[in-house]
Amino acid sequence: MSTPRLQSSWTIVTRCAQTPRRRLPARPLTAFATEPSLHLSHPNRILESRRPFAHTTPKSYRQAPVDPAADMAPKAPKIDIKTPKGTKDWDGVDMVIREKIFSSITEVFKRHGGTTIDTPVFELKEILAGKYGEDSKLIYDLADQGGELCSLRYDLTVPFARYLALNKDITQIKRYHIAKVYRRDQPAVSKGRMREFYQCDFDIAGVYDPMIPDAEIIRIINEVFDSLGWRGTYTIKLNTRKILDGIFQVCGVPEPLLRPISSAVDKLDKMPWEDVRKEMVDDKGLDPAIADKIGNYVVLKGQRDLLEKLQKDEELTQNESMKQGLADLDELFTVLEYFDALHSVSFDLSLARGLDYYTGVIYEVVTEGSAPAVSASEAAAQPAAKSSKKKGPKSSDPDEDRSNDPTLGIGSVAAGGRYDNLVGMFSGKSQVPCVGISFGIDRIFSITKARMAAQKTTEKPRRNDVDIFVMAFGGGKDFTGLLKERSQICARLWDAGIKAEFLYKVKPKLPQQFKAAEQNGVPFALILGEDELAQGKVRIKEMGLPADHPLKEGELISLDKLEAEAHQRLSLKKQVDSIARQAAGLRVVHGIKGDEVKAAGAAGGGTATTEQPAAAATAASEAEEKKPAEGEGGSS
Amino acid sequence: MSTPRLQSSWTIVTRCAQTPRRRLPARPLTAFATEPSLHLSHPNRILESRRPFAHTTPKSYRQAPVDPAADMAPKAPKIDIKTPKGTKDWDGVDMVIREKIFSSITEVFKRHGGTTIDTPVFELKEILAGKYGEDSKLIYDLADQGGELCSLRYDLTVPFARYLALNKDITQIKRYHIAKVYRRDQPAVSKGRMREFYQCDFDIAGVYDPMIPDAEIIRIINEVFDSLGWRGTYTIKLNTRKILDGIFQVCGVPEPLLRPISSAVDKLDKMPWEDVRKEMVDDKGLDPAIADKIGNYVVLKGQRDLLEKLQKDEELTQNESMKQGLADLDELFTVLEYFDALHSVSFDLSLARGLDYYTGVIYEVVTEGSAPAVSASEAAAQPAAKSSKKKGPKSSDPDEDRSNDPTLGIGSVAAGGRYDNLVGMFSGKSQVPCVGISFGIDRIFSITKARMAAQKTTEKPRRNDVDIFVMAFGGGKDFTGLLKERSQICARLWDAGIKAEFLYKVKPKLPQQFKAAEQNGVPFALILGEDELAQGKVRIKEMGLPADHPLKEGELISLDKLEAEAHQRLSLKKQVDSIARQAAGLRVVHGIKGDEVKAAGAAGGGTATTEQPAAAATAASEAEEKKPAEGEGGSS
Repeated sequence: MSTPRLQSSWTIVTRCAQTPRRRLPARPLTAFATEPSLHLSHPNRILESRRPFAHTTPKSYRQAPVDPAADMAPKAPKIDIKTPKGTKDWDGVDMVIREKIFSSITEVFKRHGGTTIDTPVFELKEILAGKYGEDSKLIYDLADQGGELCSLRYDLTVPFARYLALNKDITQIKRYHIAKVYRRDQPAVSKGRMREFYQCDFDIAGVYDPMIPDAEIIRIINEVFDSLGWRGTYTIKLNTRKILDGIFQVCGVPEPLLRPISSAVDKLDKMPWEDVRKEMVDDKGLDPAIADKIGNYVVLKGQRDLLEKLQKDEELTQNESMKQGLADLDELFTVLEYFDALHSVSFDLSLARGLDYYTGVIYEVVTEGSAPAVSASEAAAQPAAKSSKKKGPKSSDPDEDRSNDPTLGIGSVAAGGRYDNLVGMFSGKSQVPCVGISFGIDRIFSITKARMAAQKTTEKPRRNDVDIFVMAFGGGKDFTGLLKERSQICARLWDAGIKAEFLYKVKPKLPQQFKAAEQNGVPFALILGEDELAQGKVRIKEMGLPADHPLKEGELISLDKLEAEAHQRLSLKKQVDSIARQAAGLRVVHGIKGDEVKAAGAAGGGTATTEQPAAAATAASEAEEKKPAEGEGGSS
Repeated sequence: MSTPRLQSSWTIVTRCAQTPRRRLPARPLTAFATEPSLHLSHPNRILESRRPFAHTTPKSYRQAPVDPAADMAPKAPKIDIKTPKGTKDWDGVDMVIREKIFSSITEVFKRHGGTTIDTPVFELKEILAGKYGEDSKLIYDLADQGGELCSLRYDLTVPFARYLALNKDITQIKRYHIAKVYRRDQPAVSKGRMREFYQCDFDIAGVYDPMIPDAEIIRIINEVFDSLGWRGTYTIKLNTRKILDGIFQVCGVPEPLLRPISSAVDKLDKMPWEDVRKEMVDDKGLDPAIADKIGNYVVLKGQRDLLEKLQKDEELTQNESMKQGLADLDELFTVLEYFDALHSVSFDLSLARGLDYYTGVIYEVVTEGSAPAVSASEAAAQPAAKSSKKKGPKSSDPDEDRSNDPTLGIGSVAAGGRYDNLVGMFSGKSQVPCVGISFGIDRIFSITKARMAAQKTTEKPRRNDVDIFVMAFGGGKDFTGLLKERSQICARLWDAGIKAEFLYKVKPKLPQQFKAAEQNGVPFALILGEDELAQGKVRIKEMGLPADHPLKEGELISLDKLEAEAHQRLSLKKQVDSIARQAAGLRVVHGIKGDEVKAAGAAGGGTATTEQPAAAATAASEAEEKKPAEGEGGSS
């Protein structure tokens, strides 16, 4: 939104003096200049102000140190006005897009019977301890201010397991949870890698017949990405811990190396097999012959065909873990077929997932941009080729943003699996087996936004939803501004549930009012004039109509029927817009499948007649032919 | 949800062994008993486990220390499974009620042109420093783990001001923000006084003509509480800092005592005037004659009448601050009249508000339960009369829950005011004047829930929104369970946007399936039978119909038209339910005004014919006559 402004205090004082705002307390404006420092005398600001400017993140505003030459201006407070590193404010169009992603996902979750819970942002420190392996160092702790020691949640899975352990009467639940989680990781803001970020989780807890909930989770993954318009551009990588462990055991990996080798395999999405093999042999001390044997398996990908191939491998099928894993996957593929949910699935033996708590099926969703542009070893082979940056691709400063690091991809956009033992870690003995998925909203947002930019979507999301802008028509010295009438009419519209606003000016000019309505993309103007009000009438005008449109100047309606007339126009407009949007194929966000549109149209709340959608469609095709309108203020 | 369970490990092991769950890994169940301790070896658990049992909060589960007599059982982990003090999990019906409150409020905010932003949960520590006076001690800090020092946000107002200072291009905005804030205060969970709690804020920033945005904020307060069905039970206390300061100045309060005396006046909602006067004279050193003069004013309440009375007081109107304040309030009352927003307003000279940053209008919304049952001085006069508690009403342990303390009321349910200088504290010089309101959701929730309990609302909110439960009919040894068909039909319903689920069992029994549907209040069952499927048909059955209803056994529909038939029944049901709800006057949550219902009915998406609502109304009155149905499983 704002670009960095590094202005001297003097510039700001000048600008402020040139455009004084109304309604400030009756004190000289210059008085403000010294006021802030009264409240900002915290010792940290000294430390902060010593940091070099180069570290300023894009959306940050810092008072420049006072230039000695301009020292006549009052001292400004030296405080860094920004959000903490790896966090950001969400606003404007970004917020609208993100809200639409949330509502798309929530709709899918509810369609599958999900119920939502909300847990605290921080948990007792000991609840999180020992759950995340070496990533535990990324956990944010709260300061010890007396009382309990707490940490910010690292994901939504451990709090869910804690919740189930605490509520022993809940033995079966489909729960979803959309909330922020916190990781002190090196950020890459433009890739959606944040320290504070949203996860959308759906988990099915309880004892059920095998693989049915696991399959429904994969069906949910499909529905979510299809509803975002991603069909054909994402892959659900699928594996199970049992098959992976079976392969390792058959290849001869010693028991203590099982998880370390699994972690190495998990890096195959970021580096070539040669590098992974090197790590296994050189770093973890695995016999090279065993590594090569593993190498034959973990490169395999497929669907049922790969499953059948493994089922025929007699060496593998003698292993107990493998046998169980193959049976599970056979059942899973069967139910996925029933659910029509196989189209994006890739059974991928290289998928291992980092977290220790998975016990069965695991999956991870990738899309273009998930993998890094170049691998670390490639980057190392071309030292400092194109970048003008001082440091190598992987900076040693954990606070530095890695948005421009080509060895860092966006990563997976969703991931999950089955974890049958996690609840038992809290409850002692009584297990509640679980399977779930977590969608990484900030990454999904980054990709959605890049795609919208690439597709040059013409329709910009609006920042607010106002339906009607109430305006006063008139001028000259007898013009009252009609504040009373505008207020009363707004109040009537609000009472009727209609979103309305008006300019907070006693005597507003018409062009100002049109400008305000246009800036927010408000679809209708309600224009009040003294003469028309005297006859009990007001003018309603659709914004953006072309100059030759018969209703360009709007229509006079009776003030008595204001609410009904407004409702009628708004709902017709909504219908027309929705059909126009579908016709234009704008399905980037919140897309609807063709079949759904038809079904919804046919049912239409049980009240639509067949004529109306057709009429609306005609209106839509008319609307499409319209040229973009010029500014409107002058025409009335 | 769960009551405290203090069981010995032995009991749990026994119970677990009696009811083994399916799908656990093929290891002996007893193996789990020792597993958790592997992950829970954090030093804090030792400290925690030493705390006396009496401190266990209601929703907490703790492994009991192993009874020496029962020491044959494996050691259980000594970890406190609970949420941190002053925080709680939200789930089930509570979550549904809270979501409805959120959506009511969001609807109002959007109706007034609000746009939402989202700021990080933590801010740089120095951003919060110096904003909250002596309450700053309640701020949660993050631990210093290297890098920036941060604190959890204390409210949404300071982050909003920081946001405006950072985004200098935004000079006018109506923003709303619904998010959690954090205060290390002494909790009273049952009264909605939490350490982690939600605020819903609406603020109007920018330079406008006087008092119009201030009036719209009060109109918004009305709409929010009216939409919650609270009309007539709440009071918006209103005052301005300018009038208050004017009174203090006229009475002769010395300048340095202005804010301390203001703070004392602010306590008039919690204690009688005598106690406040005592604080002024004894603690703050005010001349008793001045205190008595103040006492004559601050007890005054009214509306325009009080304003007129003050306007006639010649001593007051000579004061500059007073004069400005009276002119503001005159204008405010005028616009409030236009907005039809005066009905709950009380101009109350005792309202002072604690925070320093207010500069103009201030307001606070109270309802029954806001004030404490007894004042602290009354409680002191009856020492240890009825309570069996060891400590007095105000405990010295800041962690102890004060839910049972009669000197603590729920407090205000919303509060706000005008703050014209806060943005300037960050931006240095360029001010953005603001006015806003913050709704305390946890307190509103507590009151809503208490009222629902008192009104014995018959209709329980559902925990999920599933429309159709897909079931298999059949039994005996040839029964396949129809997993394939149930899965495929569910997939078709999901594709059509219909919320559907089925039992995760290969061969489910019909009563089990009906029980699951009934527990979730699912309105329709879709029953699949081998014979009917062979004829291309399925049975759809509305749940809860009385035994003599003609459609009690459901209807056969063609599988080809499944989606359309389902949509049609669902939308009719939705219409009937909504009208029945209105007829029953169930407006506790998400109430709609009579006018709105009519207007919405008349417009009805532009597609409703006049016959249909009438038909639905008939159906609704039929529905009301129905007796509650018995369990259904046996009838098929």
